[in-house]
Amino acid sequence: METVSSWRSHHGTQGVYSHGSEATGTEMVFSVFVPDHEPGARLPVVWYLSGLTCTHANVMEKGEYRAACAELGLIFVAPDTSPRGEGVADDPAYDMGQGAGFYVDATEAPWASHFRMRSYVEDELPAVVAAHFPADMDRQAITGHSMGGHGALTIGLRNPERFRGVSAFAPIVAPSQVPWGEKALAGYLGRDRAKWRDYDAVALIEDGARVPEILVDQGEADAFLAEQLRPALLRGACEAAGIDLTLRMQPGYDHSYYFISTFMADHLRWHAERLRG
Amino acid sequence: METVSSWRSHHGTQGVYSHGSEATGTEMVFSVFVPDHEPGARLPVVWYLSGLTCTHANVMEKGEYRAACAELGLIFVAPDTSPRGEGVADDPAYDMGQGAGFYVDATEAPWASHFRMRSYVEDELPAVVAAHFPADMDRQAITGHSMGGHGALTIGLRNPERFRGVSAFAPIVAPSQVPWGEKALAGYLGRDRAKWRDYDAVALIEDGARVPEILVDQGEADAFLAEQLRPALLRGACEAAGIDLTLRMQPGYDHSYYFISTFMADHLRWHAERLRG
Repeated sequence: METVSSWRSHHGTQGVYSHGSEATGTEMVFSVFVPDHEPGARLPVVWYLSGLTCTHANVMEKGEYRAACAELGLIFVAPDTSPRGEGVADDPAYDMGQGAGFYVDATEAPWASHFRMRSYVEDELPAVVAAHFPADMDRQAITGHSMGGHGALTIGLRNPERFRGVSAFAPIVAPSQVPWGEKALAGYLGRDRAKWRDYDAVALIEDGARVPEILVDQGEADAFLAEQLRPALLRGACEAAGIDLTLRMQPGYDHSYYFISTFMADHLRWHAERLRG
Repeated sequence: METVSSWRSHHGTQGVYSHGSEATGTEMVFSVFVPDHEPGARLPVVWYLSGLTCTHANVMEKGEYRAACAELGLIFVAPDTSPRGEGVADDPAYDMGQGAGFYVDATEAPWASHFRMRSYVEDELPAVVAAHFPADMDRQAITGHSMGGHGALTIGLRNPERFRGVSAFAPIVAPSQVPWGEKALAGYLGRDRAKWRDYDAVALIEDGARVPEILVDQGEADAFLAEQLRPALLRGACEAAGIDLTLRMQPGYDHSYYFISTFMADHLRWHAERLRG
C-alpha cells in the first residue's frame, strides 16, 4: 500500500492510498480518515460506499464527515466505485463500467476479468485496512449513497455478524426492479434473474437475510426517487421481515452531496451508538 | 439577478446566482447560503473571500460552513475572485488575472477595464445581497482564505464601521512585502508603492486603520507560510497599533480546504458572538 496524499484535517489524518488489488487485478485507490487517538488504541470503522460516477474523492471533499468522526472516534473508509484504467472494460454510459461497479462480482464478458467489487470491498480491502490502520475490525458499520447505498445494504445484509450498523443515503433498494439495476445486473451477471438476488437488498430480505435495524435518509426532491430508488419497496420488505427500518423522507432535498452532507453527522452518531464498547 | 442553481442543504438554501456587474462590466457569479428563519427575519451576513484560482464554488463544496451557519443563523456569501470571460484580460500564471483579482480596483492596462473587485465586493455586491436576501446589513462580518484573507483584512480595516468581525485563514497579510503581492499590486496598480498601501493589511494598520480585534488561523505546514503569508508581520503591526490579534498557529495543517474546513465553525461562532442583537 502506498500513500498518495495525506492531509491534517479536523484533528486527524485524511489520507489517500493505493494498492495492487488481487480481486480486480488493477491498482485501486481509497481514502481513510483516522482521528487522533491514544497510542495503541483501535478505533471502530465506518465504511462509506459511493454512488455512480464517484471515486474515493467525492465524499472526501464534500461529505462533511470528518468533524463527526473526530468527535466520535471513528475511522472512515471510502473505496472507489470500480476498477479503472486502460485495460479495464468500460461503457460510454455513466451507469455501467468504470465508476459503476455496483459492488458485484461480475460473471459476464467483458466485465468478469476486473469487475469484482464485491470481493474487493467485502474481503480484500478490509484486510488491507486491518493491516495498515488502527482499526478495530470487531466494530464495523457500513453506509453509502445511491449505488453505494445499494452496496451498503446488500453487503450489510449478507454479513450481519460483521456490521453493527447498516444505513444508507438515497439507496437503490431493489436494483432488480429499476432501470439502473436491471441494466447493470444483466450486464455484469447475465439474464438469469435468480443470480441477481444476492445483489438486491429487497430480494435478500425476502430470501431471509436479516439485520436488526436500518437507517435510511431519502430526499423528497430527489430526481431519481420514483424510478430508480423506490424506498417503499424496502419499507415493505422490512415490515414483512420484522426489520426495524427508520426511513426518513426529507422534504426539499435532492440526490446531491448537499443532501448527504446534511445528514452525514446523524448517520455517524447513529453508527457510533451501535459501535460502542 | 438570476438563480443559477439552488439546493436544500443543512436546513437552509444554498444558491448560486449571477448578475451583470457595473463594477467589472462582466457577468459575475456568487453563492449564498440562507438558513431557514422566521418569516420577515433579517439575518446577519458573513462574507467569505476566496483565494487564488478559486471561484464561488470551492468554499461552497469544501468549506463545511453550512451546519454552523444554520445553527447560528448566519447568511454566508461567497463572491468570485475576479471578473472572467473571453473579453477579460488574463495571464498564463495562476497568480495574476482571472481567478486572481486580489480585491483591488486596477488602474493599469490591460486590467483597469474589468478588474474592479474592490468596488464589486465593497459596494456593488452588498447592495445586490441587501436587495435580494433576508440580510441585516447592519450586522456584517468578513473572512477569507489566503488572497481572500488579504481581501477580508483590507476590506475590514477600511470599513470598521461596517464589519463587526474580521477574521482570516492563512491570509496574505502584507502583499507589498511578498512575491504574490508584489507581482499583483505592481501589475494592477503600477510601480508606485504608495498606491499599494490601501491594499495591504499591515500598511493600512501602520497608516492608522483600526479594528478592535482580528482572528487568524494559520497552518504550520502551509507551504506558503514563510515566503507569501508571513503572519509575524501582522502580529507586529497589531501589537504596535493595540489591535487584539488572536493568531492561532495550527501544527500539521497546510493551505488547503482540509485546513479551512477544520476551523470554519470556530470562525463562524466567533463572528456570531460579535453579530448578536
